[in-house]
Amino acid sequence: MAFAPDLASQVAGELALALHRAAFPVPVGVSVRHFHITEADWGTIFGSAEPMKKRGLLQPGFWAAEETVTVSGPKGKLERVRLVAPWRPKTQVEVSRSDAQVLGIDAPVRGSGKLSGAAPVTITGPAGSIEVPDALIVAQRHVHFSPADAERMKVRDGEMLRVRCGTGGPRETVFEGCLARVSDKFALEFHVDTDEANAAWLKNGDLSQLV
Amino acid sequence: MAFAPDLASQVAGELALALHRAAFPVPVGVSVRHFHITEADWGTIFGSAEPMKKRGLLQPGFWAAEETVTVSGPKGKLERVRLVAPWRPKTQVEVSRSDAQVLGIDAPVRGSGKLSGAAPVTITGPAGSIEVPDALIVAQRHVHFSPADAERMKVRDGEMLRVRCGTGGPRETVFEGCLARVSDKFALEFHVDTDEANAAWLKNGDLSQLV
Repeated sequence: MAFAPDLASQVAGELALALHRAAFPVPVGVSVRHFHITEADWGTIFGSAEPMKKRGLLQPGFWAAEETVTVSGPKGKLERVRLVAPWRPKTQVEVSRSDAQVLGIDAPVRGSGKLSGAAPVTITGPAGSIEVPDALIVAQRHVHFSPADAERMKVRDGEMLRVRCGTGGPRETVFEGCLARVSDKFALEFHVDTDEANAAWLKNGDLSQLV
Repeated sequence: MAFAPDLASQVAGELALALHRAAFPVPVGVSVRHFHITEADWGTIFGSAEPMKKRGLLQPGFWAAEETVTVSGPKGKLERVRLVAPWRPKTQVEVSRSDAQVLGIDAPVRGSGKLSGAAPVTITGPAGSIEVPDALIVAQRHVHFSPADAERMKVRDGEMLRVRCGTGGPRETVFEGCLARVSDKFALEFHVDTDEANAAWLKNGDLSQLV
């Protein structure tokens, strides 16, 4: 089999890049259903109490709160959906597609904060309930990088990555279309939801590889 | 980059096989949680009534019944889990890992009928309840082939396949470790569970490719 010199050089370049990246294992973070909220919406459903920190997350500045809400749709509801702080400019509920099917809502895959076309949903707390017309999404899988990690691994912000997970387990899987997000606020972590984690038999802290 | 002749020939052979197989699209079948049962266990939990056919499945001779049970574990229960007939030599409950987490049971990945190490579970019908010590599994993803399909696609029974799914959708995924099952009782179909379907954004009848 003969390759044109340009194609051979392109294939060799892609292989070299994949091998380079694969040398840096990326910890997996499994995102369970949760919500982010504006300070105003918080007031409506929780009243005047401030959210209380339960535990810090790997991403700097983010924390899971003690407070949870009920999220409901035409077919069902999800209870004890936890707040992830800090405040956001738009209220947002992130669920798995399995969760969305329990609610009976056809929620789209979106990057966090990209709420164009997000589905309507009802959020209920101890002090009240809000109906948000564009809040429910299934999170797009994504990899967080610090600028130093991105440089070391030769990754650009916004790039679509391929990530191999679950190697050595019963459900090894290669996820295409994993969005690279680079920020000096981020730590190296591959975020998947519970459907993706269970499809590849993953738990928090398992190691994955860009390929 | 220079390859040893043996390696070059092996790589070329694997590429040619992958390209050959990829030309035959394989419909996806999404398995929702269900159970198979022995005639004796059926008698215990349903009494003397015969199961009633609800609808045929793509695999010849298999059908979903009108009857459902409640499956329970230490942490929770799953209601309306449907019977798939015909009778089996061993009673077996197939759930997703998400379902197993609702039950609070650590169920292993197993091929259908391979119940060594399967988890204990309680099954309740209108006439009674059984506790089965080795019935709960998460199904190993697998591809059904008729002998003609297998020959055409150059696949051997028991081979582990790689299947690309969700191409063109928001969650393209390559599943490793998909078991090839060849039988004259089978029709061409790639079986995944609901976690896997949702991770790759699949629905029944979507097309996948061996790669």
